[in-house]
Amino acid sequence: MQNKKYMNIYLKRLQRLRDLMQKYHIDYYLITTQDYHNSEYVHDYFKEREYISGFTGSNGTLLVSMQEAYLWTDGRYYLQAESELKDTTIMLCKQEKGHATIEDFLEERMTSGQCLGCYGQCLTAAYGEKLEKICENYQASIKSDLDLPRMMWDSPDMPCNPIWVLEDRYTGKSSKSKLKELRDWLSQKGGKYYFSSKLDDIMWLYNIRGNDVECNPVALSYTWISEKEAYLFIQKRAVTKEVQKYFEENEITVVDYTETMDFIKAFTFQKDDVVVLHKKNISYSFYKALSAKTNVLDEQNILEKYKSIKNKTELEHIREAYLYDSVAVCRFIAWVKEAVKTDTVTEISAATYLDDLRKELPGFLGLSFPTICGYKENAAIVHYEATPKTNKKLKPEGMLLVDSGGQYLKGTTDVTRTIVLGRLTEEEKEMYCAVVAGMLRLADAVFLEGCTGRNLDILARELLWKRALDYKHGTGHGIGHVLNVHEGPQSLRWNYIENMTETILCSGMLLSDEPGIYLAGKFGIRLENILEVTEDKQNEYGQFLKFHPLTYVPLDRDALDKKYLSKDDILRINKYHQNVYQKILPFLTSEAEKEWLRNETNPIDF
Amino acid sequence: MQNKKYMNIYLKRLQRLRDLMQKYHIDYYLITTQDYHNSEYVHDYFKEREYISGFTGSNGTLLVSMQEAYLWTDGRYYLQAESELKDTTIMLCKQEKGHATIEDFLEERMTSGQCLGCYGQCLTAAYGEKLEKICENYQASIKSDLDLPRMMWDSPDMPCNPIWVLEDRYTGKSSKSKLKELRDWLSQKGGKYYFSSKLDDIMWLYNIRGNDVECNPVALSYTWISEKEAYLFIQKRAVTKEVQKYFEENEITVVDYTETMDFIKAFTFQKDDVVVLHKKNISYSFYKALSAKTNVLDEQNILEKYKSIKNKTELEHIREAYLYDSVAVCRFIAWVKEAVKTDTVTEISAATYLDDLRKELPGFLGLSFPTICGYKENAAIVHYEATPKTNKKLKPEGMLLVDSGGQYLKGTTDVTRTIVLGRLTEEEKEMYCAVVAGMLRLADAVFLEGCTGRNLDILARELLWKRALDYKHGTGHGIGHVLNVHEGPQSLRWNYIENMTETILCSGMLLSDEPGIYLAGKFGIRLENILEVTEDKQNEYGQFLKFHPLTYVPLDRDALDKKYLSKDDILRINKYHQNVYQKILPFLTSEAEKEWLRNETNPIDF
Repeated sequence: MQNKKYMNIYLKRLQRLRDLMQKYHIDYYLITTQDYHNSEYVHDYFKEREYISGFTGSNGTLLVSMQEAYLWTDGRYYLQAESELKDTTIMLCKQEKGHATIEDFLEERMTSGQCLGCYGQCLTAAYGEKLEKICENYQASIKSDLDLPRMMWDSPDMPCNPIWVLEDRYTGKSSKSKLKELRDWLSQKGGKYYFSSKLDDIMWLYNIRGNDVECNPVALSYTWISEKEAYLFIQKRAVTKEVQKYFEENEITVVDYTETMDFIKAFTFQKDDVVVLHKKNISYSFYKALSAKTNVLDEQNILEKYKSIKNKTELEHIREAYLYDSVAVCRFIAWVKEAVKTDTVTEISAATYLDDLRKELPGFLGLSFPTICGYKENAAIVHYEATPKTNKKLKPEGMLLVDSGGQYLKGTTDVTRTIVLGRLTEEEKEMYCAVVAGMLRLADAVFLEGCTGRNLDILARELLWKRALDYKHGTGHGIGHVLNVHEGPQSLRWNYIENMTETILCSGMLLSDEPGIYLAGKFGIRLENILEVTEDKQNEYGQFLKFHPLTYVPLDRDALDKKYLSKDDILRINKYHQNVYQKILPFLTSEAEKEWLRNETNPIDF
Repeated sequence: MQNKKYMNIYLKRLQRLRDLMQKYHIDYYLITTQDYHNSEYVHDYFKEREYISGFTGSNGTLLVSMQEAYLWTDGRYYLQAESELKDTTIMLCKQEKGHATIEDFLEERMTSGQCLGCYGQCLTAAYGEKLEKICENYQASIKSDLDLPRMMWDSPDMPCNPIWVLEDRYTGKSSKSKLKELRDWLSQKGGKYYFSSKLDDIMWLYNIRGNDVECNPVALSYTWISEKEAYLFIQKRAVTKEVQKYFEENEITVVDYTETMDFIKAFTFQKDDVVVLHKKNISYSFYKALSAKTNVLDEQNILEKYKSIKNKTELEHIREAYLYDSVAVCRFIAWVKEAVKTDTVTEISAATYLDDLRKELPGFLGLSFPTICGYKENAAIVHYEATPKTNKKLKPEGMLLVDSGGQYLKGTTDVTRTIVLGRLTEEEKEMYCAVVAGMLRLADAVFLEGCTGRNLDILARELLWKRALDYKHGTGHGIGHVLNVHEGPQSLRWNYIENMTETILCSGMLLSDEPGIYLAGKFGIRLENILEVTEDKQNEYGQFLKFHPLTYVPLDRDALDKKYLSKDDILRINKYHQNVYQKILPFLTSEAEKEWLRNETNPIDF
């Protein structure tokens, strides 16, 4: 049952927002779920949409008019939104094909002379321009400098955690040489200045890390770079004397985070100056401020690209991090398969057990994302996170999906295994085998340089498509080095989107390989290895590339059934298991664990 | 040895061209290999580049300055060009990575005040604009209305063959309803007029055919369409009374082909009129004439898209055409494998034998392209066409590659088989098996609607890439219905080209599936089936699609070796052969042919 007290809160908040809208002559006010950097995770400080509406999902946009209010969110959150929005008068709008988008809605409602309000720091430049265009078409105006919820909200403080330096022995490249590379590119593009607000790019460029976004070791920041100068906008309180010294040594000028906009507005440009930025990675406010003053060149994010190609040092560390992370996951699997037979284990306690194993690993900094631990039908919810309300007790039956990863001084990990806790149905086995086979077929690919993820995705998906099944997510994403667990620009997806730039896969890139299958109300299976792109032969046809696996965790023998696997699939499983055995055995100490590993990785005969 | 007489001819012709250039104040004159419609095959009337340079290849662009002359062509023609250009003073420029393009060359050479000449009817609008831009950058000018070679050349006549009507019982859709569909689309795009110069689109739209381009049943034509009117520009001499009556009945106004430009130039536009066209399919001359007078909207070619999705009637006819075309190819294979043991058979005589078999088939109109018949190392040349000079005698050894097709009243065919004439090496067998397996893996694909050819190409190519091999051509192209053997917009390719629009595969489209392997100096293998895209299951994941084969010709048992095939590959071969047996047997009359088919399609056990 909905709590009466809360209902009143949201109705009151809507009313106060409308009072402010009236004061500032705003007819529609739009509240997104973004922080100022379009980060994947958003700190409580930025949760204005939740504050006004009460809806707690990770995706949702609220549009408030003087009489009505609407919230758009996607299929993951329909039930939750219906429940959380009950009695708030806010209407749920579905983000799916065939339903009106916010833009459709505005196009229908906006009339001449009206005003759309929003806070331009919480919109990307590209989206802000879209809204601007709609307003223009209907002789309406857009007001993007008023953060109305902030005016009425006694919000949590902005996160401000210490910034630290990731030493060159981990990064493999000094900030100075990264800056040089960027400046060379900038001058080649005819740019005088480079502006970025993408947190992981900025961390990578300066070889620093922070802790201002959940699970992402980044600090709130901006950067402004010219041929001679490098300005880093961070919260000065987050900078220790030691780190300040590092900045000075590297000729990085620190300006307080809160002064970024003033800096931009006060900057004196020459007539032919060009600022290079990527509109998808910058807020509408900064874009407007810059484009009003000078020439702006929208370019694919070059730092993201540099960052995606890991250097030798990074790769050496990453391989090591994956090795001991894999060991922790192996230990977890060996433990959980036994523990459920005798102990009380739940989704949450199992996740905690795994998290605790990771905490013991060298250089542990935190999780790379909240551990997903879904049992039976809960695993069919792709973005499931156990709550005390949904928390299931594990029994020696069915399957447990665990998607998890850690942040270490040597790297960022991400791994998924679906663990068999007891007897499976034939359907479960067949699906598990199809997912295993798809994952390893992709991992086994050899391809010419020039391929993008769209060329390869079908290798993982084909066996499911042949059964008229699919998983509604990409097959893979890039991964940071002591940075965000999801990074671009490369990815493994199949969908064609007109005018979308694809990224050619290069040696040194990392990709997750994570096919799955989710049967609502029944079970969910996902398996995920991380792959490193490496060079294969080079000849008159070009440079061939292949994948090198970083993850070494057995596939569950209790779900592998020869009748659902081809001979080639079995050969690939055996080869992978042989590698797992060789890599992991030296790290195991208990005889039980060693025995478990031996059994799990024993070749399947055919 | 080069013929002295010819040498003098080309030197003389270059001199006369330079005299004309001087007269018209032109510093560089560019001659392409295009007709006015950018057709795949070019009639002799349009072969100005060959007339001036003596180079006879199907790809080449000549650039003549007052002192020098350069010819760009691709790797297929380097040897031929070197020989044909000997003593003409024309220098060969290679069209390949790392070599300067024509545009690079012009950028380096053009100086302020110079003039680049060309004939705008023989350039696409897109390419013309590119040249224009280069000239602009160097304060040079472009003069595109002078067809200088034509002024000095007593050329063959422009082709002018009778136009005929392809009846609705073959096309499945009247021209009137096609025009209606186009007009609906036009008005939806906000266009008032539609202009096209793409010959196969125009044939399709009006349900007519011609014979002005080698192997393509098309007539030289343009069309101009408004809401009420449809102008068809064709050579009036090519129109019989009967066809004229058909045009009148269908409210199609015929204007003579030679008056097209005058028509455009005299046309009266209103202020807000918009002409919709596709810049890639229209000549620079027409584009310039139109954009100077009115608003032009560049849109993906809609007729090409409509045309690519075959309707039920077309598909029924096409399936039938492929059936009897396959029978002819079966008969040919059965014959050639025996004939080489005893008779004198050459590449050319074998091709003639096959062409003669096709001539006997119902509704035969001609070949859909000149038959490619390459023996042993000749087959390693991808676009090989036997000449009396290269013509090889076939012996009971090695392999013969035959790529061929016919034009029939019911459809256009295209099929490739590589035929084993005797003992093969292990390498040849392994390569043959890899190509067979790739072709059938692709044909066996099931995929979600939304996929383009780039998602699927790897299925055919993967086994070669795993051997560090590749074929330097696409895996597949669309095919016309009683039209061009190569048509778009769909294709099967893997290369990523930024900003290139891809075409989503739809039920009713046709695609060739033709992987290959070409080892220079040794052998060439290509196998090609034509596939029809059909619907598979539809469910919550979307609409699944699959392929239905149209081609029923056995794969050569003498090259199939279990050790190079997986069990799944063998199952696919057996399934395909079972279909071939059932479909083809009823058409065979001689016991020897039946026996041959039985042996060839017998299941392989594993």
